[in-house]
Amino acid sequence: MNTLAAINHQVRLAARPIGLPKPGDWSRTEEPVREPADGEILVKVLYLSLDPAMRGWMNEGKSYIPPVGLGEVMRAGGVGRVIASRSPHFAEGDYVSALTGVQEYWTGRADDKLAGVARIDPQLAPLPVWLNALGMPGMTGYFGLTEIGRPKAGETVLVSGAAGAVGQTVGQVARHLGCRAIGIAGGRDKCDFVVNELGFDGCIDYKNTSLRDGLKQHCPNGVDVYFDNVGGEILDTVLTRINFKARIVICGAISQYNNTTPVKGPSNYLSLLVNRARMEGMVVFDFAERYQEAVQIIGKWIQEGSFKTREDIVEGLDQFPAALLMLFEGKNFGKLVLRVAAG
Amino acid sequence: MNTLAAINHQVRLAARPIGLPKPGDWSRTEEPVREPADGEILVKVLYLSLDPAMRGWMNEGKSYIPPVGLGEVMRAGGVGRVIASRSPHFAEGDYVSALTGVQEYWTGRADDKLAGVARIDPQLAPLPVWLNALGMPGMTGYFGLTEIGRPKAGETVLVSGAAGAVGQTVGQVARHLGCRAIGIAGGRDKCDFVVNELGFDGCIDYKNTSLRDGLKQHCPNGVDVYFDNVGGEILDTVLTRINFKARIVICGAISQYNNTTPVKGPSNYLSLLVNRARMEGMVVFDFAERYQEAVQIIGKWIQEGSFKTREDIVEGLDQFPAALLMLFEGKNFGKLVLRVAAG
Repeated sequence: MNTLAAINHQVRLAARPIGLPKPGDWSRTEEPVREPADGEILVKVLYLSLDPAMRGWMNEGKSYIPPVGLGEVMRAGGVGRVIASRSPHFAEGDYVSALTGVQEYWTGRADDKLAGVARIDPQLAPLPVWLNALGMPGMTGYFGLTEIGRPKAGETVLVSGAAGAVGQTVGQVARHLGCRAIGIAGGRDKCDFVVNELGFDGCIDYKNTSLRDGLKQHCPNGVDVYFDNVGGEILDTVLTRINFKARIVICGAISQYNNTTPVKGPSNYLSLLVNRARMEGMVVFDFAERYQEAVQIIGKWIQEGSFKTREDIVEGLDQFPAALLMLFEGKNFGKLVLRVAAG
Repeated sequence: MNTLAAINHQVRLAARPIGLPKPGDWSRTEEPVREPADGEILVKVLYLSLDPAMRGWMNEGKSYIPPVGLGEVMRAGGVGRVIASRSPHFAEGDYVSALTGVQEYWTGRADDKLAGVARIDPQLAPLPVWLNALGMPGMTGYFGLTEIGRPKAGETVLVSGAAGAVGQTVGQVARHLGCRAIGIAGGRDKCDFVVNELGFDGCIDYKNTSLRDGLKQHCPNGVDVYFDNVGGEILDTVLTRINFKARIVICGAISQYNNTTPVKGPSNYLSLLVNRARMEGMVVFDFAERYQEAVQIIGKWIQEGSFKTREDIVEGLDQFPAALLMLFEGKNFGKLVLRVAAG
């Protein structure tokens, strides 16, 4: 391929959003594709991951990762094909996952630590799955549940955002560990999917039923592990139903990310005291050394048919700003992925 | 002693308080002292412990211990002298600690599990200290810090209510473990005491200075363990200064116990995620089997002079309702104790 002839379209952060990101918070740029220098590879981006965490990356201030700078290409995980390589570790035609950013082409060092370039095997699962169960969300669910939640067989594991990328993995891993897996999701369709397709033991439709009643019905023996992706009122209500020595994994708080008022703290946090329970935060990057371990396990389950995934694929780099908003409105059904180019 | 002639004065819970307990929430009763039956002992109560947790015991509803029933003698820990015994385990003249309740005499089984009758040694430390560092608050501070907070030498341990019963112990145990101990207390006198008498490395007067500035000054390397006795705004501010893998011990929330509006949840709880930190509740009763271990260690420090205690002693059973309010106004200086009778 004559990459010099190609143009790289990009989406950059133009302004720090207040509340939900607006169209004017983004700028679109194009520049010639950069040829790889020694040690670098050039990746054609095929799919991009859309994640709630992106909203946090757009804010100024200290967090677990530096914010995206104004004018920078928006950070995003992607999968793509190596189309030129000057690294001994990757060959043209290899498929990789990496923090490519919201653009059509990524050129960078094959050993760039932040980018985290890793070879992926499209034979094991289709490319979008490498942004889902075999990518960051899967790693988040797997290690968050097994290392922070640490459920024992027979315990009840509850997860919010159950039809979403992380939630899918949490519930299915819980089932594989011999736990009772209960989801919380918005809408009948999502709940049906979670139970009928993913094999959860139950799912509470928080949009159409009372969460309190749902918890009584589906978690009659209380909640041993709650994997929280949403925060807000849902976290607060779950706190009233946790068991002695329960563990709450704080993975995210999508309900609060676009707040223009202070985050709603969990009013019932003293339930931690009464129940000698633990609430602990997790960030997937801490487990980077062990991703391969989880990929092997989940990959095997996928091939056996005992682990399902669902992606919600939106077409076209141009759709990035609109697609991101779908996450915060709960409009995606399954892991939200942007298709940038044909494989 | 002819105990049949004696009258037992009592303070009972007459109504469930809304907000701060009012005089009308209590009733005073008297009844003849009951002689011990087989296996029982009769204890003359000398000192009673006044604790923030009492406010929780007055509320209806599920907690870590059943509420005090309406019309029942108010629950309280006490120390006293055995004045009649029909148990082989205790002799007349023994000093004991037990959940005696707010009354002058307690008659009950020597092996009553809830009452937790234990022999104490007035030679090791004066009786009020057995309601402080060698009693529940000391056990709470010792096991909460060592088993839940688990600080390592060189780490910064921060404790609120530092001049109070639990706080005194937490900071001094932290110092003994080689940690930097910083307190939070209300008023210059309390802060001076915490630093000059108890040997903390620093103390922030939250009533007269900005907690945020105080934390920057006294915890320049952040907070590794925060032992929280107060909740509310203080917990929320501390959350902004915790370190990677910090541990927050939720021991109590005195600022919230008399709320008539919902408890203020910690708005900055997502700092747990950013810092992969843990917030965990503790209840001292879980460590009952190990009290002797802590009593030996702290008792030895007291005798060596490397551990100080301070009690604030109020005279007379009649003063119970008024004394309890002192806790919630922060008017006590040191562990608050009610003297019921001369030793």
